[in-house]
Amino acid sequence: MLALPAHDPSLLAGGTSGPRALRPLLDTVLGALAEGAAARCGPLPAGGPERVRDRLAEAAPGPALPAHGAGAAPALHQLVRALAEGAADPADPHCAAHLHCPPLAVAVAADLAASALNPSLDSWDQAPAASELEDRISRELAALVHPAGPEPHALITTGGTESNLLGTLLAREHLAGTADRPLRVICGANAHHSVHRAAWLLGLPAPQVLPTPAGVLDPAAVRDALLGLDALACVATGPAPALVVATAGTTDSGAIDPLPALADTVAAARHGGRPVGLHVDAAYGGPLLLSPTHRHRLAGLDRADTVGLDLHKLGWQPVAAGVLTVPDAAALAPLGQRADYLNAEDDTEAGLPDLLGRSPRTTRRPDVLKIAVTLRALGRTGLAALVDRVCAAAAEFAALVAAEPGLELHSRPTISTVLFRPAGATDAQVAAVRRRLLVDGRAVLGRATVRRPLGGAPALWLKATLLNPHVHPSDLAALIKLVLDQHDGTDGAPGTDVTTQRDPGDDHQ
Amino acid sequence: MLALPAHDPSLLAGGTSGPRALRPLLDTVLGALAEGAAARCGPLPAGGPERVRDRLAEAAPGPALPAHGAGAAPALHQLVRALAEGAADPADPHCAAHLHCPPLAVAVAADLAASALNPSLDSWDQAPAASELEDRISRELAALVHPAGPEPHALITTGGTESNLLGTLLAREHLAGTADRPLRVICGANAHHSVHRAAWLLGLPAPQVLPTPAGVLDPAAVRDALLGLDALACVATGPAPALVVATAGTTDSGAIDPLPALADTVAAARHGGRPVGLHVDAAYGGPLLLSPTHRHRLAGLDRADTVGLDLHKLGWQPVAAGVLTVPDAAALAPLGQRADYLNAEDDTEAGLPDLLGRSPRTTRRPDVLKIAVTLRALGRTGLAALVDRVCAAAAEFAALVAAEPGLELHSRPTISTVLFRPAGATDAQVAAVRRRLLVDGRAVLGRATVRRPLGGAPALWLKATLLNPHVHPSDLAALIKLVLDQHDGTDGAPGTDVTTQRDPGDDHQ
Repeated sequence: MLALPAHDPSLLAGGTSGPRALRPLLDTVLGALAEGAAARCGPLPAGGPERVRDRLAEAAPGPALPAHGAGAAPALHQLVRALAEGAADPADPHCAAHLHCPPLAVAVAADLAASALNPSLDSWDQAPAASELEDRISRELAALVHPAGPEPHALITTGGTESNLLGTLLAREHLAGTADRPLRVICGANAHHSVHRAAWLLGLPAPQVLPTPAGVLDPAAVRDALLGLDALACVATGPAPALVVATAGTTDSGAIDPLPALADTVAAARHGGRPVGLHVDAAYGGPLLLSPTHRHRLAGLDRADTVGLDLHKLGWQPVAAGVLTVPDAAALAPLGQRADYLNAEDDTEAGLPDLLGRSPRTTRRPDVLKIAVTLRALGRTGLAALVDRVCAAAAEFAALVAAEPGLELHSRPTISTVLFRPAGATDAQVAAVRRRLLVDGRAVLGRATVRRPLGGAPALWLKATLLNPHVHPSDLAALIKLVLDQHDGTDGAPGTDVTTQRDPGDDHQ
Repeated sequence: MLALPAHDPSLLAGGTSGPRALRPLLDTVLGALAEGAAARCGPLPAGGPERVRDRLAEAAPGPALPAHGAGAAPALHQLVRALAEGAADPADPHCAAHLHCPPLAVAVAADLAASALNPSLDSWDQAPAASELEDRISRELAALVHPAGPEPHALITTGGTESNLLGTLLAREHLAGTADRPLRVICGANAHHSVHRAAWLLGLPAPQVLPTPAGVLDPAAVRDALLGLDALACVATGPAPALVVATAGTTDSGAIDPLPALADTVAAARHGGRPVGLHVDAAYGGPLLLSPTHRHRLAGLDRADTVGLDLHKLGWQPVAAGVLTVPDAAALAPLGQRADYLNAEDDTEAGLPDLLGRSPRTTRRPDVLKIAVTLRALGRTGLAALVDRVCAAAAEFAALVAAEPGLELHSRPTISTVLFRPAGATDAQVAAVRRRLLVDGRAVLGRATVRRPLGGAPALWLKATLLNPHVHPSDLAALIKLVLDQHDGTDGAPGTDVTTQRDPGDDHQ
């Protein structure tokens, strides 16, 4: 390799000289991250989308692709600082809207190595050790979910959405739907929108959606739906194939569908001759398996044909760290592909592993590395402690809400999601409180339209998804105070305009 | 936040204290990367898959998820060192098999910030600045491809495979195929396997594959194929919708289909009343647009309805950095989704950007950050210089092959791919040479079955894909010598077994 000047922006990250090239640039990044976080000084930038747009334009003026480069360190400093200043930081205790976790430093550091080495998991000769590591970790993760499976295995995915797509795709292929008798997906109203998107992408009919007035799928309703498919079936072609999609940890409330009863329902239908599968979207709840305290909530999960779980939710990985597990590696066969340049038959016969069926993607980053390092660094007890801490924080937050007369608690949390609202507020007022906290840069809370328990009417709730294992009770109390103050001060106008240019100096905490 | 001991493996990467938690861990990673590269001492580990498996098991013994954690630094050091030692490193000049580039240090450093901040691009309140940055960069990248488009825009994808899927999906939706008159994909035998996979995933008929004896799509054959669809069409429903998929930079040889003539063919069919689209898979060739010397090869690209290009190929980004461009943002409308928790109507009306239609994924890492930093750091001239260098290196390598009587050159390279083979070798001997170089840890070369020019017979070729901008002429000469020596020493047995346990000390360079 040519000798290059020290600050040549074309220096590579790999080889024996890569670490030397990286070191000063990483110092720049760490400095810019610290400066950006200090400048933001809260869970997200104040001022709303317009202000963020203006700040980014100020921080990095001119075209994205200038004629001549600014150099590595200046470009890194400008853009990383701007991104940090303009981040919604899940490490801030008041950033608790989404299943958007604060990643562990150890996982982030491991992810750096994935970028620097840049293995691509579509062929052995691009990723010798990384592909072997992925195989090992995938098998161990799958064995956690399906301990009694014949040969548990897993795919590493981009997240719950890809896992739901793959679960549906595998059902489409295994259950042998046809153009005039396609696979029918049956899910609850509580299912993630990506279940609908998967059916659409795959050219299947829209899912049959069952109401979930109690927040979870009703096995009797699923049984009836499966029986109802017979009306559509042709006697000559046999019963229509179906996929039941259950959820372990809904996005709105963290509810877990009754998995044992659903598995029984599916088994009974299968016994009755219907080709039917069970996919569980455990993107949120799946990692409860790591906790001896909470894993009983996932009883029945092992009976699913496919299970999606995300370690970028309860697992504290940077995105992406999705997993799709199967009890038997043979179930993954429909994903097999042949491309002479990646897995020629004579190469496979000669012993080169064939990796192309491990993903719907081709070129693919080793997201498994950060997962492997995290599992090894924290161990089962370390990860269980983090799971237990966020569940305990949610219970604590719910107790604080319940004790506050100005707030209404929806219910005790199942995992780490708490739904609550200012007592007596209209839905429009609830939505306005959330937006005002966002625009002021004070708190990032989510929203969910969910019925009150015991068949009550639907209402819009504020949603706190607690995923920060280091959150302190005083942070939770402060978050409650922010909501109460905001509600008292808001006019509740449904159209609260978040694009209005405001001076962030006024009210930035 | 609680005060935590310095080496607590549960420390977070975010917030104001994240950079302090990251610094010692990054030192561990850099040290482990350097140690691993030194131990490997070549483009990939010697000994083949079995040896790699054994080394990984030695380096990280015991279960992936132990009962008690090893701690952050030990876990990082063990696994990162093992991954580096077992990597196929594209920064090594003799690692030249695939469209697998050595990433720039500046891009890798930027990617660290994406992991640490962990914005997720499915809603504004998870990624205020990152979503704004993605919007800006996407528009500028799209304007490079479609300078005359009404409103050029782009999606950031996981790579060419997702881009081909999205191009096909958008055609399926816009061209209004129906169950009994589905979209027909027409592509060349030179197209990437993901075009076939996309049709399969989307529930469409298998693509109609046109022979490409000259290595590129023949516009007359495309015209005939479009006319031939009429035989299938029903008079009542009108002509069948079709998508022509062309390639700008094939995986096997880097060939570029005749884009202007193909665009004319599609325009004529459209003028004749057929709903037909043109998607160009420019995953490899697309970034030639950055080079004033080479961009003329992509004339006609701007006329496509959708174009995929990968900045993790010619663009020197760590995976993933795929882009799908459209001349008009309105073309992306079919991807729009509504999910109350991410883009409720009242939030969108109040000015919160709706991001859910920007990808088929939901949770999504900001791959745009490393792209943005690289564009700014190197500028157009800096990136053009890198593109020009790898094209020049390929021309140089082809000249060396042509001058060597023991080798046969397929043809002058179009981009940076050179096909060559030992003169007079059988296909089995060619395959064995490649595998032996792999197993010995000496070189990573690709393979391609391609006809000799001017209608010659198909043969198996060695493939050198030159993507390292710092490769030196002496590296190229050494690579040629390795191939010649290996061919002279090989027995050419087609079944050369790469899993045989060998002592890597014997022949590790």
